[in-house]
Amino acid sequence: MNVDLHHHGDRDVAPGLVDLAVNVRLPAPPPWLADTIAGSLHELGRYPDAAPAVEAIAARHGVDASSVLPTAGGAEAFTLVARGVRTARPVVVHPQFTEPEAALAAAGHDVGRCVLSRATGFRLDPRPFAAGGEHAGADLVVVGNPTNPTGVLHRASDLRSLRAPGRLVVVDEAFMDAVPGETQSVIGPDLDGLLVVRSLTKTWGLAGLRAGYVVGDPAVVAALKAVQPPWSVSSPAVVATVACLSERAVAEAEAGAMTIAVDREVLVRELEAVGLRTAAPSDAPFVLVDTSPLGAASVRADLAALGFAVRRGETFPGLGPTWVRLAVRDPETSRSVAAAFAELGRLRRVA
Amino acid sequence: MNVDLHHHGDRDVAPGLVDLAVNVRLPAPPPWLADTIAGSLHELGRYPDAAPAVEAIAARHGVDASSVLPTAGGAEAFTLVARGVRTARPVVVHPQFTEPEAALAAAGHDVGRCVLSRATGFRLDPRPFAAGGEHAGADLVVVGNPTNPTGVLHRASDLRSLRAPGRLVVVDEAFMDAVPGETQSVIGPDLDGLLVVRSLTKTWGLAGLRAGYVVGDPAVVAALKAVQPPWSVSSPAVVATVACLSERAVAEAEAGAMTIAVDREVLVRELEAVGLRTAAPSDAPFVLVDTSPLGAASVRADLAALGFAVRRGETFPGLGPTWVRLAVRDPETSRSVAAAFAELGRLRRVA
Repeated sequence: MNVDLHHHGDRDVAPGLVDLAVNVRLPAPPPWLADTIAGSLHELGRYPDAAPAVEAIAARHGVDASSVLPTAGGAEAFTLVARGVRTARPVVVHPQFTEPEAALAAAGHDVGRCVLSRATGFRLDPRPFAAGGEHAGADLVVVGNPTNPTGVLHRASDLRSLRAPGRLVVVDEAFMDAVPGETQSVIGPDLDGLLVVRSLTKTWGLAGLRAGYVVGDPAVVAALKAVQPPWSVSSPAVVATVACLSERAVAEAEAGAMTIAVDREVLVRELEAVGLRTAAPSDAPFVLVDTSPLGAASVRADLAALGFAVRRGETFPGLGPTWVRLAVRDPETSRSVAAAFAELGRLRRVA
Repeated sequence: MNVDLHHHGDRDVAPGLVDLAVNVRLPAPPPWLADTIAGSLHELGRYPDAAPAVEAIAARHGVDASSVLPTAGGAEAFTLVARGVRTARPVVVHPQFTEPEAALAAAGHDVGRCVLSRATGFRLDPRPFAAGGEHAGADLVVVGNPTNPTGVLHRASDLRSLRAPGRLVVVDEAFMDAVPGETQSVIGPDLDGLLVVRSLTKTWGLAGLRAGYVVGDPAVVAALKAVQPPWSVSSPAVVATVACLSERAVAEAEAGAMTIAVDREVLVRELEAVGLRTAAPSDAPFVLVDTSPLGAASVRADLAALGFAVRRGETFPGLGPTWVRLAVRDPETSRSVAAAFAELGRLRRVA
């Protein structure tokens, strides 16, 4: 299947539409964070120094500085993986964020896919990666947790079990800070053969700033660092990284994660009330919705006519046009998008 | 010769020293620019959209949008060249900014060097690149103009003459906006086989922001775009790029370039008054100084003891520890650094 791996939710938004397509929780950084960034602009004459970000990341996760690298967002991290890690048989677990596969392909790699099935709730099955399995020879495995776009939170123990001699397991935890307690993060004392990609974009309304980081096996981190352009992370991104990893900010993110969980329940309930189901129980700030009860084609254009932008499913390997991803918003927005779906159902039955 | 190609002037600065090591003219962006950037921070929740920067760059240089790509500073541009351009025999003209060679080497290329000679004033000689010359087979040539660290401004006609079938000529014009009238820029209607790298860092006090761009052959620009990570240029960098390429800002840069020319004359005269000469006439916001009259070793530690940080020469292929690069500052700073050199001479003669 040939899909546009470079398609992202920001391109599914149009002016005037209520945006449920983009996975950014806040429309802008909170005032305290915007003020902190603005207050650092007088230092822009100096080249960026990532050291304070390295220190903050290491302290936040209780790991050594050698396990840490700030990046210009998650997108740069995937490019560094594609360029810096030696791999002959990379495999990406789908459906998931498509940038890792796109970055690997752009670097000239032939990328294998392990496509999870709806029948099993898009849940990770480690068996194809074990001895004798279809992907036993994979030397690089990329998997999202919680997974974009399915919302599925895989067990940390399952992810750790993917490790094998000569294999690197890359876990995209871009949305993990939206999971209360970050219960299934694989960041911990044992980082052998693991690389975790983190983002500050979604929780903090910083998509425009490009701020993220990786935590993982020091040998892998060193390899990524070797191919990272100098000064890659801007000074405002360093300032934001330090600010967003303070104890106060981490507590604020945790409170936000609990709000998301409550708001998500409302969204799921409202959707079910109009006859729509999510692909699987979601632990992410979005849900993947099966719109096939409304017909075989995409509902996006009709939904847009009713004022709502949603993320198309057909650019995710393993999904198709009847899947859409919806960001978790406030209950009022959830009720109104559910009402729009209901209206759509009526219109389609009439037509 | 094995030198640390990753060494940059920002690492030659220490707290408390007068900084002549870093080539950034302003210690911070001017208030109007800082205000423009600060005023855009409420939009950080959106993913970056580089389109306004593309439009501004194309308009500024009178070229088509297909000839233009905004980058996260010049450093990213060199990484994109190293990754996106097919090359079997790249050659870098030295002494010059070392990042292009470092980026090519990091991408696995075997990089040839054409080292210009002090005897010819570090001036470009196109002959080795012509048929029968030592570098006739080069398919990628990288050259700085005006050149960091020598300050030499090569003729645009000489640079254009380097072009040959199957060869790309990359001209690093990071400091061209500090040359009144930008007289020797190769940007123009004929961009075949050319790629120009530009920076906003030096003139606008934006080193921390990572804002630059390339202008060149559309086929090459497309190849770079194909390997650029998505959203690579942050929203604040897009805003700054648009602002710095406005007619008003370009006029302000031109006025600044004329001030630099006057200030540079003062610096050169003051240095000559204490028996020091520059490597060649400089058209850049810095000069390369031969400190060998003060002895065979580096003067950097002694100068630091007197309160001044200068950029070491020994990490530039073709130079050695008796060369130092000095940023052009205000006349008072130039007089005081010349006085420090004089004091150093006295101390060394006494010792």
